Amino acid sequence: MGWMQDETGLDKCAANHVALTPLSFLTRAAQVFPDRLAVVYGKHRKSYREYHARCSQLASALVGLGVVPGDVVATLIPNLPAQAEAHFGVPACGAVLNTINTRLDAGTVAFILDHGSARVVLVDSQFIPLAEAACAAMEGTAPQIVEVPDADAGHPASGRYPLYEDLLAGADADFAWQLPQDEWESLALNYTSGTTGRPKGVVYHHRGAYLMCMGTLVSWRMVLHPVYLSIVPLFHCNGWNHAWLMPLLGGTLVGCRDITAPAIFNAIADEGVTHFGGAPIVLNMLVNAPESDRREFSQQVEIFTAGAPPAPATLAKIETLGFNVTQVYGLTETYGHVTECLWRGEAWEGLKDAERAALKARQGVAMPMMEHITVMDDGMREVARDGKSQGEIMIRGNSVMKGYLKNPEATREAFVGGYFHSGDIAVQHPDGYIQIADRAKDIIISGGENISSVEVEGVLMGHPDVNLAAVVAKPDEKWGEVPCAFVELKPGATEDEAGLIAFARATLAGFKTPKQVIFGELPKTSTGKIQKFELRKEAARL
Amino acid sequence: MGWMQDETGLDKCAANHVALTPLSFLTRAAQVFPDRLAVVYGKHRKSYREYHARCSQLASALVGLGVVPGDVVATLIPNLPAQAEAHFGVPACGAVLNTINTRLDAGTVAFILDHGSARVVLVDSQFIPLAEAACAAMEGTAPQIVEVPDADAGHPASGRYPLYEDLLAGADADFAWQLPQDEWESLALNYTSGTTGRPKGVVYHHRGAYLMCMGTLVSWRMVLHPVYLSIVPLFHCNGWNHAWLMPLLGGTLVGCRDITAPAIFNAIADEGVTHFGGAPIVLNMLVNAPESDRREFSQQVEIFTAGAPPAPATLAKIETLGFNVTQVYGLTETYGHVTECLWRGEAWEGLKDAERAALKARQGVAMPMMEHITVMDDGMREVARDGKSQGEIMIRGNSVMKGYLKNPEATREAFVGGYFHSGDIAVQHPDGYIQIADRAKDIIISGGENISSVEVEGVLMGHPDVNLAAVVAKPDEKWGEVPCAFVELKPGATEDEAGLIAFARATLAGFKTPKQVIFGELPKTSTGKIQKFELRKEAARL
Repeated sequence: MGWMQDETGLDKCAANHVALTPLSFLTRAAQVFPDRLAVVYGKHRKSYREYHARCSQLASALVGLGVVPGDVVATLIPNLPAQAEAHFGVPACGAVLNTINTRLDAGTVAFILDHGSARVVLVDSQFIPLAEAACAAMEGTAPQIVEVPDADAGHPASGRYPLYEDLLAGADADFAWQLPQDEWESLALNYTSGTTGRPKGVVYHHRGAYLMCMGTLVSWRMVLHPVYLSIVPLFHCNGWNHAWLMPLLGGTLVGCRDITAPAIFNAIADEGVTHFGGAPIVLNMLVNAPESDRREFSQQVEIFTAGAPPAPATLAKIETLGFNVTQVYGLTETYGHVTECLWRGEAWEGLKDAERAALKARQGVAMPMMEHITVMDDGMREVARDGKSQGEIMIRGNSVMKGYLKNPEATREAFVGGYFHSGDIAVQHPDGYIQIADRAKDIIISGGENISSVEVEGVLMGHPDVNLAAVVAKPDEKWGEVPCAFVELKPGATEDEAGLIAFARATLAGFKTPKQVIFGELPKTSTGKIQKFELRKEAARL
Repeated sequence: MGWMQDETGLDKCAANHVALTPLSFLTRAAQVFPDRLAVVYGKHRKSYREYHARCSQLASALVGLGVVPGDVVATLIPNLPAQAEAHFGVPACGAVLNTINTRLDAGTVAFILDHGSARVVLVDSQFIPLAEAACAAMEGTAPQIVEVPDADAGHPASGRYPLYEDLLAGADADFAWQLPQDEWESLALNYTSGTTGRPKGVVYHHRGAYLMCMGTLVSWRMVLHPVYLSIVPLFHCNGWNHAWLMPLLGGTLVGCRDITAPAIFNAIADEGVTHFGGAPIVLNMLVNAPESDRREFSQQVEIFTAGAPPAPATLAKIETLGFNVTQVYGLTETYGHVTECLWRGEAWEGLKDAERAALKARQGVAMPMMEHITVMDDGMREVARDGKSQGEIMIRGNSVMKGYLKNPEATREAFVGGYFHSGDIAVQHPDGYIQIADRAKDIIISGGENISSVEVEGVLMGHPDVNLAAVVAKPDEKWGEVPCAFVELKPGATEDEAGLIAFARATLAGFKTPKQVIFGELPKTSTGKIQKFELRKEAARL
């Protein structure tokens, strides 16, 4: 231990120890980048001076509504300015921000509002009916609704609730922020959208969000003044913490209500977007966009993608359009991304597309703010770095949640042995890069052979007519399970089941080749992940 | 405070809380950048895999020499590989690194070795006589000397001490690093070179160095894989923490024994240097270098400069050579730079050279890792932001020292009121940018008028024949004090006293114009600062 023999007088004091918090990024930005554009959405264009003032007004208004430090303030808002402002305004009065997924059903929203004991909920006018139904279904006291209309987008005020802008207008732009005294204080509450049971409330601390921002900017090669397009929902790991990150860099956050190819291309061309994150489905949307939806742009745009490895065919196409894609991996419990497929320029340049894509399909290595991320067997021993031995991804570092709210047993289980247990099954390559073998349930076992649904999907996605493909296990008398594919074709495409099966068989072993192909739109979660459990149910019915 | 009503089970644990330390940057770099070039000096070219192994061997060797956690290990080495390795190898065995200024006299080195109770000292062969004289002059037990020869540079081994490379060769490259359990543990000890009295031992903690690195890379617009030329001595605030920073970015540290214009231009051209720090005297050296000492290069090179504002004439010249200069400000007590003259592109583009230089002469705003840096009067009230009202620069944030070793009284004084008191006198401009009015003793008071020696020096430096200029007060019967200039001319230049005085008078008020000019080489400290106290003594004798 690095304690010297005599450390008299060397203690922490106000001059040399300040609690880490992302709030300090905006406090500083208002001083050093006052005239830079902070948040953009349509006609809403606010500088850092204005953004800071509006967040201060929000904090002041919340205090006026009776919010006290430690209270929960919830939101039901798309990636719009008020949602970004809540990331600072809510903790600036000592409250904890609970961004709720706007695509959830009223029953689940009611559960979340009850479980978190939200005192106030900021609601976009589009989601007032959802909020009202949820409040009606609650067991406890319903939170006070504050309405955030977006008339220009066709969502005017209902007239039934106090309006966000009115509250701000009546509040104090010089409100003194309640900065944390201890960086372990709670900053945000995010409910995981588990496939079974009630969602769990993941609690973030100020320190974790601060360090998440620092690590992210290194991995994403961000310099001052990036322009970040907010596609990853801010209700999903707080948009991977990017709302908190932007003021550190004097960057601009570009809001976005509906994620469409024209909206993305327009933001890139008109606002000079340099960075965004999104599930592979977003990449797909871009490469498959008709020419009329595209725009010219000159900057290189950096994309972080997560949720599933991008298909090789998608990667090959999107890079020629001026995008650079880095796969990252993480969970709600880890504030979002904690591994990155760091590109080894010195070793990997000059590879062919297929080899590049195979490397980019890896989830990669620990990001800078993390201490250790590895793959372990059931006895918590690291698996061999052979690209074959499977185990669970285990995560240790400063961007790991405090735990699950009011669920100490689940927290204890998640942290057994000093690592967060991700639940994701992976291998480690000889260079230490982690690659998800399959979300545990996505392994198809056919005649005793393991089949990676990711691999089969990757092949199908290489077919020029395929927009999206998902492969699940279908129960089978003889083989136990066989792969069954669900496919969305591109508009106007005409490929049929036999053609796709033959295409897959040209690359895959027979046992890996889908035995059946079902065409139609795939069911997706609010974050764009394909709902495989729905497909598994459907496959079982076939 | 952001504590929720029920925080049961939400405590820190091994999974979600890891002590911040720059050591983790190298641990990670060895994993994710193993084949990247980490340290370069002549034939010494080591990858991150090798660098990590050598630092592990150093830690192992120190344990073999009897070093235990909390011990001090000192160095007397220029900016060479062993000095960089000590930044990781020493704390990796739990010891505290004390890099000693190689330009100090033996008596002061003896005081430092005694005061810090150094157990081992790593010594470059050039400084073996200094180390021997210091050890002989010590009151307590002398540290064990380990010699680091540099035969290629004309400094072969003395044959009297164990050799650094031999110790490494016999040590364990898989030594398990002793990472701090608490980020407040001591990492380094740096003695300030005060102008009066014995130096004070400034103690750094792991957290401060980690956050210093994070803040620096943002301000310096560093992305992955910078090439950093080590000009700022690593014994000066640990080279502003850059040895610790490089592994975070997979960057390359280029060693340098003697700071000369050819050495700098060669490193830029041959090693692709992208960043370096240095006092204005280094900038001067570059702009005044003869054509034969220069080399062509295509990259933009970013320079952090500190110690004094760069002269407008120097700034104007160096930017045309492919360098971008940012002034930073800090002290040993703040790990180096804590303010930066952040360039406000949106507001300041298109200004003329003189206006740009005037803005770049400011010390600027708090860097991202700092909480609050301002200028206060004696009552600790912020002075008006009018560019005129003077006060003391006061500093609060995570890159402030733990305190002075074995000097709790000086520590308490330095931290009165919850800020570190810098001792530097400054003004604040309306935009919050701080500008040093003068180091307190550098103000010349003539006939009741304050004269900024910095201003007068800036004018003199604009003369084409002037290489360096320093202005101090000379006692005067009539006016109390008058400005007296000491000037180094460029080789071959012929300007005389009358000519320079006339040149200055063309810009300056009469009372600010030097009454006397003395030509000759200026006395400088080990870090390149001009020793004004020597000049003041000389001026008093005139």
